[in-house]
Amino acid sequence: MEIYNPKEWIKPVLYWHKADTMRKLFPYLIIAAVFSWGIAFFELEYLKISEKSWVKNITVVHSLLGFALSLLLVFRTNTAYDRWWEARKQWGALVNSCRILAYKLNAMLPQDDKSSRVFFRKSISMYTRALIGHLRSDYTTYMLDDLDHPEIEPDKHRPNQIAGLMFKTIHKLYREGKISSEDYRLVDQELNTLTNVCGACERIKNTPIPKSYISFLKKFIVIYVASLPSGFVFSIGYFVAVAVPFVFYVLASLEIIAESIEDPFGLDQDDLPIEKISGNIKKHVEELIPLQ
Amino acid sequence: MEIYNPKEWIKPVLYWHKADTMRKLFPYLIIAAVFSWGIAFFELEYLKISEKSWVKNITVVHSLLGFALSLLLVFRTNTAYDRWWEARKQWGALVNSCRILAYKLNAMLPQDDKSSRVFFRKSISMYTRALIGHLRSDYTTYMLDDLDHPEIEPDKHRPNQIAGLMFKTIHKLYREGKISSEDYRLVDQELNTLTNVCGACERIKNTPIPKSYISFLKKFIVIYVASLPSGFVFSIGYFVAVAVPFVFYVLASLEIIAESIEDPFGLDQDDLPIEKISGNIKKHVEELIPLQ
Amino acid sequence: MEIYNPKEWIKPVLYWHKADTMRKLFPYLIIAAVFSWGIAFFELEYLKISEKSWVKNITVVHSLLGFALSLLLVFRTNTAYDRWWEARKQWGALVNSCRILAYKLNAMLPQDDKSSRVFFRKSISMYTRALIGHLRSDYTTYMLDDLDHPEIEPDKHRPNQIAGLMFKTIHKLYREGKISSEDYRLVDQELNTLTNVCGACERIKNTPIPKSYISFLKKFIVIYVASLPSGFVFSIGYFVAVAVPFVFYVLASLEIIAESIEDPFGLDQDDLPIEKISGNIKKHVEELIPLQ
Amino acid sequence: MEIYNPKEWIKPVLYWHKADTMRKLFPYLIIAAVFSWGIAFFELEYLKISEKSWVKNITVVHSLLGFALSLLLVFRTNTAYDRWWEARKQWGALVNSCRILAYKLNAMLPQDDKSSRVFFRKSISMYTRALIGHLRSDYTTYMLDDLDHPEIEPDKHRPNQIAGLMFKTIHKLYREGKISSEDYRLVDQELNTLTNVCGACERIKNTPIPKSYISFLKKFIVIYVASLPSGFVFSIGYFVAVAVPFVFYVLASLEIIAESIEDPFGLDQDDLPIEKISGNIKKHVEELIPLQ
Amino acid sequence: MEIYNPKEWIKPVLYWHKADTMRKLFPYLIIAAVFSWGIAFFELEYLKISEKSWVKNITVVHSLLGFALSLLLVFRTNTAYDRWWEARKQWGALVNSCRILAYKLNAMLPQDDKSSRVFFRKSISMYTRALIGHLRSDYTTYMLDDLDHPEIEPDKHRPNQIAGLMFKTIHKLYREGKISSEDYRLVDQELNTLTNVCGACERIKNTPIPKSYISFLKKFIVIYVASLPSGFVFSIGYFVAVAVPFVFYVLASLEIIAESIEDPFGLDQDDLPIEKISGNIKKHVEELIPLQ
Repeated sequence: MEIYNPKEWIKPVLYWHKADTMRKLFPYLIIAAVFSWGIAFFELEYLKISEKSWVKNITVVHSLLGFALSLLLVFRTNTAYDRWWEARKQWGALVNSCRILAYKLNAMLPQDDKSSRVFFRKSISMYTRALIGHLRSDYTTYMLDDLDHPEIEPDKHRPNQIAGLMFKTIHKLYREGKISSEDYRLVDQELNTLTNVCGACERIKNTPIPKSYISFLKKFIVIYVASLPSGFVFSIGYFVAVAVPFVFYVLASLEIIAESIEDPFGLDQDDLPIEKISGNIKKHVEELIPLQ
Repeated sequence: MEIYNPKEWIKPVLYWHKADTMRKLFPYLIIAAVFSWGIAFFELEYLKISEKSWVKNITVVHSLLGFALSLLLVFRTNTAYDRWWEARKQWGALVNSCRILAYKLNAMLPQDDKSSRVFFRKSISMYTRALIGHLRSDYTTYMLDDLDHPEIEPDKHRPNQIAGLMFKTIHKLYREGKISSEDYRLVDQELNTLTNVCGACERIKNTPIPKSYISFLKKFIVIYVASLPSGFVFSIGYFVAVAVPFVFYVLASLEIIAESIEDPFGLDQDDLPIEKISGNIKKHVEELIPLQ
Repeated sequence: MEIYNPKEWIKPVLYWHKADTMRKLFPYLIIAAVFSWGIAFFELEYLKISEKSWVKNITVVHSLLGFALSLLLVFRTNTAYDRWWEARKQWGALVNSCRILAYKLNAMLPQDDKSSRVFFRKSISMYTRALIGHLRSDYTTYMLDDLDHPEIEPDKHRPNQIAGLMFKTIHKLYREGKISSEDYRLVDQELNTLTNVCGACERIKNTPIPKSYISFLKKFIVIYVASLPSGFVFSIGYFVAVAVPFVFYVLASLEIIAESIEDPFGLDQDDLPIEKISGNIKKHVEELIPLQ
Repeated sequence: MEIYNPKEWIKPVLYWHKADTMRKLFPYLIIAAVFSWGIAFFELEYLKISEKSWVKNITVVHSLLGFALSLLLVFRTNTAYDRWWEARKQWGALVNSCRILAYKLNAMLPQDDKSSRVFFRKSISMYTRALIGHLRSDYTTYMLDDLDHPEIEPDKHRPNQIAGLMFKTIHKLYREGKISSEDYRLVDQELNTLTNVCGACERIKNTPIPKSYISFLKKFIVIYVASLPSGFVFSIGYFVAVAVPFVFYVLASLEIIAESIEDPFGLDQDDLPIEKISGNIKKHVEELIPLQ
Repeated sequence: MEIYNPKEWIKPVLYWHKADTMRKLFPYLIIAAVFSWGIAFFELEYLKISEKSWVKNITVVHSLLGFALSLLLVFRTNTAYDRWWEARKQWGALVNSCRILAYKLNAMLPQDDKSSRVFFRKSISMYTRALIGHLRSDYTTYMLDDLDHPEIEPDKHRPNQIAGLMFKTIHKLYREGKISSEDYRLVDQELNTLTNVCGACERIKNTPIPKSYISFLKKFIVIYVASLPSGFVFSIGYFVAVAVPFVFYVLASLEIIAESIEDPFGLDQDDLPIEKISGNIKKHVEELIPLQ
């Protein structure tokens, strides 16, 4: 993730990053321009359809449905943003729990129990690293697919294993009376968060928007834009070669932004900086459980 | 559920799966096309209504109400999606609780208490299987119906019985001092989730959107589309036979997608892959409570 | 509540139930039709206003405000639906807590303590029955009214009394050492839910949408529809007698559906089947606390 | 708050209460009417601007922006409603906690500890009264103002003091062994709610919508409405004197309703009946902690 | 933050504060006016494009996309407001927890343990001050940036250190038996809130809206407004020099308000008064833990 100054106006307008929708859509915009120009040429020079023709009014359908399409796309982008923000919240919860775990364990663990101290200092950030690996693996992506994917199935679910190990260690400390029963409970609460965050991130990753919805939306956009020039030609002539690509740019950008943010654990520019977050967790945990 | 690449554009547009709305609506689109053509023919060739006629302007009503209809349908789809997503979240909570239960029980249960280990290893995934059966049974569908359905009433509510049995076993272990009072509390929290998830899924399943709302929406769509050609004929002539089915396709698709996702426990393509989730739970629980 | 098949299209369109908005609005639709026809006759035959008249363009105001009105009404319906769904969720929480209470008490109560078993078996479903009575009484409706209503004030708040009695019994069992302190805590959590659900349902029942909002909305609908025919006459002539009632049907239906679902504890067709839910609770509690 | 029958249509339309927006806006509507008539007269009789003039088409801007304005205002009203409803929920939580506190304390307090019984019976409803006083004081309103307001600063924060005293008493009972440690925890949970509700209500009260947003919205409404007649005159002539005030009525009503409900603790008709709620709490607490 | 009377209408309209969007946008409005006038002059006087030209109808694209743009911007503002309001809620939670901590510690700490009393009296408000410093530092802003910023990295995360110290002190009191295990748990709950609030505020601060979304939105606004005059000239002539800046004012204001409120921890006029809140916490904590 790149931090930017949201108050600038010139830069974002001239912005031409590889994640920018304008760039991603560039080839399609060219196609739309050529296609529109072709339609215009065909209707105006070849068919010489008169202004009286019924073709001219075909745009009434576009204005009738334009609202539904805009609404759908804006909602679509918002749903995607909600997923992205929920993922960020989950990682925020992970940060909080790791910090709380760290300062609690620092106070609770006997001053001389070096090995437990080292263990938790390490295992907390190891959990976050394992979670990143898990969320970026193909296994997570295809976890709920109709088909089985035995070839990508890992040996064991790593985050689960680490959480299990951490709990086991805490339970042992409690059984041995090294930490009190109250301490045990307080630590347990935070450990639960680790597994809950993992489950929530898996959910966001492996459950995309229902396929028939996406398929409908893309069909709608394509038919809408493709049928736009035939009617528009009579109002704006060869300008369709500019106007139609612009309409397509707006509509498709919304869909593309939605696609790029709804799976926030990848390596795209808009994805969550989970590596950075994990690095910060490591740093703060080490600050909070000093080694002597 | 089929995992797809959300970044593709060609495939979804050409997509012709049996769950696709285009396919489901196909017969109705034909009817709409024929009907519109009929109206056009009747008005243009038979009645020969002049352009001056009042019929021509009947579309002002359509543009006045088009916005309300679009808004309603988009909200409708969103409400349905919210139910679908809530169901997914509930199953996510179930996954989390089962995992937490598993690694906690693994640490808590005495190493030599084989029978308890086997019991929980089995009963956790048995619960998820029983829940699937319960959610797909007619009993759940008609649980709140006005009429009684004694013929489909099961002997007992299975998920409740299993949850009750699990709690009883935990309680016994606690009474016998095999697990501490703290352990008892920590396990109990997760057991509650099982019943809460079951109740929430039953709610989503047995409480559809208020009937008068759905009935109103369908009446609105049908009247709206059926009255569309009579006015449109004067702007776009025989093109109504293409334009009106397209409008109907858009409006009805939204309704159909909503219908297909608002009950997410079935076997449709857009339904939640609860069998897969249940299978994953089984696998992970067995990983976390190894048998020796 | 009547369970219906949401995938049907013919039935809902022909649906003519007494709760259907088409039926509720029928007399008003007739009035709107007659009124519109009257305006049309008056303007066309009597005043013979020419097409050039300013009256003709009065509809620009309608299209300017049509969007605001649609938006308001759709939001209105959604707010009402949110209340309805919140009420359903509260009753869902009640179901969950009653089930959890039942299987916990079954495990906790000494096998031979018949009287406690009978007590809780009865009191749980008695609570749900008392809650129904409470929510349907005039007392709840007028709880927060400006005026006092001593004539409908019940002797005591029944659900509170039953919850108090249940807690007292649990507390006594705990004091007497029949259940452990952990058991006491676990049961207490669920008992709290009963009172929380009761409070939330009272809130939904006794706090309608702010009056000035509703009053504004109804004024807006009536003025909007009443002024519609005078301008429309010039576009669609006598068709106003069909078009205006249809516009009114759409707008008023949204308001009527909102009204019918925002108080979900009544006996209307769209109201929540709280009697059924209460019956199910009774059945499941009895299954879970068998009398042996 | 006045309880009304939401199913009535005649009354709300004729409703002319002092809180009604129609009445509040009356003087402004007159001004808008006179102003619009003045513009119409000026343009039609004095300037005699021809139909061809560019002024005529100035309304294209209005239709372009009308949608944004409607959307903004409807969202504005919904945000305000959300605050109002959140405040109601907070007071609902207060009701629940007070009832739960009451029946718990009744069971827990030793039968002969008259003084504690009397203390809690009184202090619970005293808290709610103190909260009302606090929420209606100028101190709360200006708590976060840029300027200091030493003149309205109370000696101490009363709700905090009462909550502190209640906790101290409970803690003393626990220390003295009059209530068990479990009892202490259960009561503590509910006491926390009191302070949480107080903080949430303060938040709603002392943090209005960002000022630049409100200032923008009002500028937008005023410029929009003030520039409406100059273009409208050419479509609807002297009817602007009716149409423009109506447009203003609709837009400003939304803003006024939002203003009136977003601070729900006052004495307006749409404000929450917190006195009534507080009275009900008192009655129910006294029912639940009987004095002998 | 400046407290204002939301019921005033004259002041906000004439309002010309430095945070007002009208003022911020002033130079751009001048540019837009000059640019529009230039286009008008060029098309009308120089090119003398006839009314028949296709340029004239270019506005159909603007009305087609105007809705999508409005919708996007209103949603944008609402998302920003949600962040702002979430931040306010987090600080509200901080206020509540600090108050609860204060009155609990006052009751729990031994009357003669002066040093602990002084410690907590100080450390609670020290935490809030450290949080303000942290949230306003560049470190927090660039915490998740792609680049490392070692030059602004503080020695240690101060809020974490203070929270850790507070927990350590509580844990010591509990170990030494100065407070009971129940007391320990009750205090711990509130201490967790401190760290959770800190994490949530960091999240709001260091995770802006995805950059490609913002970049798209600004491109859309600029292209939309820049292409507006060329078509509008034919409807409203030189009035474009007023109308286009107004359209830009409305669209850009929404974006600017969103930018100004989505990072609520700064020193702008619309930012949250966290200094004031922190001051109030200090005052109330000192009231609740009196020093003798």
